[in-house]
Amino acid sequence: MKKDLSKVYARLMDKFKEMIVLSSASSLLGWDMMTMMPPKGINLRSQQLALLAALGHRMATDPEVGKLLDTMMQHSNYEVLDAIQKRNVDLIRKSYLEQVALPEELVTEMQRQHSIAHDVWRKAKTSNDWKTFMPELEKNVDLAKRAADILMKVKKTDTSYDALIDIYEAKMTAKDIDQLFTELRSGLIWLMDKIKNSPYQPDTSLLHRRIPIDLQRKISIALTQAVQYDVISKNAAGRIDETEHPFTTGYYDDVRITTHYYEDQFTHSLFSILHESGHALYEQQINPEWIFQPVGTACSMGIHESQSRFVENIVGRSLDFWTYFLPKLKNIAGDVISDFDLERFVEAINLVTPTKIRIEADEVTYGLHVIIRFNIEKDLFAGNISVKDLPEIWNQSYKEYLGVKIENYTEGILQDMHWASGDFGYFPCYALGNLYDGQLLAKMNQDMPNWHQDLAKDGFTMVKDWLGQNVHSLGNLYDPPELIKKITTKELTVEPYLKYLNDKYSRIYKMPNK
Amino acid sequence: MKKDLSKVYARLMDKFKEMIVLSSASSLLGWDMMTMMPPKGINLRSQQLALLAALGHRMATDPEVGKLLDTMMQHSNYEVLDAIQKRNVDLIRKSYLEQVALPEELVTEMQRQHSIAHDVWRKAKTSNDWKTFMPELEKNVDLAKRAADILMKVKKTDTSYDALIDIYEAKMTAKDIDQLFTELRSGLIWLMDKIKNSPYQPDTSLLHRRIPIDLQRKISIALTQAVQYDVISKNAAGRIDETEHPFTTGYYDDVRITTHYYEDQFTHSLFSILHESGHALYEQQINPEWIFQPVGTACSMGIHESQSRFVENIVGRSLDFWTYFLPKLKNIAGDVISDFDLERFVEAINLVTPTKIRIEADEVTYGLHVIIRFNIEKDLFAGNISVKDLPEIWNQSYKEYLGVKIENYTEGILQDMHWASGDFGYFPCYALGNLYDGQLLAKMNQDMPNWHQDLAKDGFTMVKDWLGQNVHSLGNLYDPPELIKKITTKELTVEPYLKYLNDKYSRIYKMPNK
Repeated sequence: MKKDLSKVYARLMDKFKEMIVLSSASSLLGWDMMTMMPPKGINLRSQQLALLAALGHRMATDPEVGKLLDTMMQHSNYEVLDAIQKRNVDLIRKSYLEQVALPEELVTEMQRQHSIAHDVWRKAKTSNDWKTFMPELEKNVDLAKRAADILMKVKKTDTSYDALIDIYEAKMTAKDIDQLFTELRSGLIWLMDKIKNSPYQPDTSLLHRRIPIDLQRKISIALTQAVQYDVISKNAAGRIDETEHPFTTGYYDDVRITTHYYEDQFTHSLFSILHESGHALYEQQINPEWIFQPVGTACSMGIHESQSRFVENIVGRSLDFWTYFLPKLKNIAGDVISDFDLERFVEAINLVTPTKIRIEADEVTYGLHVIIRFNIEKDLFAGNISVKDLPEIWNQSYKEYLGVKIENYTEGILQDMHWASGDFGYFPCYALGNLYDGQLLAKMNQDMPNWHQDLAKDGFTMVKDWLGQNVHSLGNLYDPPELIKKITTKELTVEPYLKYLNDKYSRIYKMPNK
Repeated sequence: MKKDLSKVYARLMDKFKEMIVLSSASSLLGWDMMTMMPPKGINLRSQQLALLAALGHRMATDPEVGKLLDTMMQHSNYEVLDAIQKRNVDLIRKSYLEQVALPEELVTEMQRQHSIAHDVWRKAKTSNDWKTFMPELEKNVDLAKRAADILMKVKKTDTSYDALIDIYEAKMTAKDIDQLFTELRSGLIWLMDKIKNSPYQPDTSLLHRRIPIDLQRKISIALTQAVQYDVISKNAAGRIDETEHPFTTGYYDDVRITTHYYEDQFTHSLFSILHESGHALYEQQINPEWIFQPVGTACSMGIHESQSRFVENIVGRSLDFWTYFLPKLKNIAGDVISDFDLERFVEAINLVTPTKIRIEADEVTYGLHVIIRFNIEKDLFAGNISVKDLPEIWNQSYKEYLGVKIENYTEGILQDMHWASGDFGYFPCYALGNLYDGQLLAKMNQDMPNWHQDLAKDGFTMVKDWLGQNVHSLGNLYDPPELIKKITTKELTVEPYLKYLNDKYSRIYKMPNK
């Protein structure tokens, strides 16, 4: 009997391996589309991606998988599987039940509609044209509601919005997030106002030093070396390319990042390189024995975002990191930045100021951008508001939360592509990532009280290893709430992150920390 | 009834579309592996390629395809299909019958063995180690014989070697090739000897001018512009990258080439760019209405090679082309080559001299390298010789045909990767490509007697359009022998190619042309 079960398990793993290998091939095609593809190749590429998506869907809903899962669940020896094997089976089962529940027609229609809506959005954003985009967004929302209603039953969530959140952040609910975000919001607004009223303000003139793109490329490589994401050695598993919007893609031994260079805004590429390197290190440090298994994938988008933001902000905007890296940067860049003062530079890269654009936001105001979007999504899927009201709600929220006046659609409701691509429920992950970071940082402080000094003196190794052992290597062994508890021994709360921000910005703005 | 048939036909075309789209995705993964992939990515990439190959095989042998073909062939209205539709059905049927006849176990074993043999060959070539490679080559030959014996019955060819040739050059047989090559061989040896004895010999010192790689990259782009293979415009369907061995890959609107730069051998990249651009233009100029259909693919490897060599040699090594392009080259390269004399340069790039390495051979001696390989393959598959005798036969042939003494395995039997990859029957295509070129050139001379003057004055447009209309656009509508007859109204003969060579090299070597 035990032998039978191991055969069933092995067959199930073979099936999953096909899915993940296919999906990694698909990601590579997507990467090529953004980086290398000749412009005329787009039609063929769409056909290739659509075919691979269809093949992937066929694999995921293959009746044999259903039968294998049934056999597995009914088997008297199911309990013989170890915890990792059980988690693998559970993850495959969850995905199978969801995929099978969604009618093929709906999946295809969503794919089709999202491509159209994304294309309309891209043009609409350029031309400040909400009217043209609105009907497409309405269709996206209708389709998402249909899918969410189905998934809600399969996932047994309280609301349809919860079913969408669960896609990106398993086991998190709007109710839990609401509680966290309410607390987060008041903490952030309090700190933002305090900073605004601080008599001391950083001098950011350094940030506008012109640095030639070729030099920025060299700096990027040095930065990846500093955080030990290897893009140059003979055994490298990474590479850097250039795209409009930076991103990371890949799996284990082939994880690639991109950045964008602006000659008069060199810190843009610095921090996008650090951010994407954080994503890349996560993918590369998952337990290598788990490759091609469900546990051998990232835990969630929120945990992913926590890792990128940990490297970008907690490490990358710290005095310690720049104590270590600024001398190296000066060696590479030479005259252009030889006059940079360490403390002044670190203050400049930590300027806090309310802005209209999420991806340009600092650590303190960033969460507010996310909370605005979360509240809108929640109301939208509860049926309390409708698509046509969104610009007004958006602009009011920005006024209320951040005190900024949105002047047009492009800088307002049209700024992000997520809704255009049908990704509802994704936004909260960004702010959850910050909260995870606060809690992980508190634990790291406990485990290695001297990590700051070590970072300043010897670089990133100690932190990288800690993240590797405590977060990355665990892959998808636990859902996010459980993972955070396993690592930090505590439920997720807002307090550690707010404490981190208060400590840091009190120092930078030379304010009393209370 | 007619309506039923069109449904069957449409379904068959859908099935083929999946296959060709999947295969184009697979090619992109292969391209990335050679150009962009981080070194550590190789294991994952092998898994991706193996999966896509397996999925492709499943599609190609899908029983539904068999049933659709049966319905189609038995249908009383089969004759209602037009010529293009019939050709599409015939090509799918041919491929289906062949794929189905080969046992899965044999296909898998060949794939596995060829990877191993290729890897062993790569190392053996570096270390001049025939002993280690020999058993792998024996296995490759055994597997090829097994496959050829099966295919021979399906394809109804006279010999098993013919079944292999037919994979790359449909409807060509060893007997036909033998006849052509016997004549070709004497013509080439006669001309080679005549050239050897010519008192006038080109001065090739120009070819060793050092040209910085960055400058060579600019020249490459200018060359692709000169032959109208677009790699830079906003609507480009091509791109250039750098690899150890140049190649072309792609389909219609995304066709990419590679080259290799040597600072002290700048003509290497010139001619590899022209060669690969010839391949690329072929793929891009196939009738756009035929995309995703069997007719919308290249006719054969021999026809492909004829197109690359047409652009590289007949155009690219002509006085006319350099009359047009040398001034442009001087504009780009400036001082480095400002002293180049047009006639001297054209003579230098047309030096004829027997060498040991096929891919370094000139137009006159190239065919002899191919004939040596063809004769060996023919004897090998007829069972007249065995693998262990190959080095001796090889070295003797080189002595006899080219008068050169092979000193070691690396420059002899181990120089090409084709046999290591199991590609038996491929070599003749290279020399057939030359013969096709001779006949196409004669027809082009008839159709446009002034193309030389036009090329010298206005560039490549006229020739490109002629090749596009007469060769490229026809895709795989006819098998090679029929295609050549359709275009030139004649059966393939050796005479036009030998006439081209005699005319050209008599001029260059200032010899009487008889």
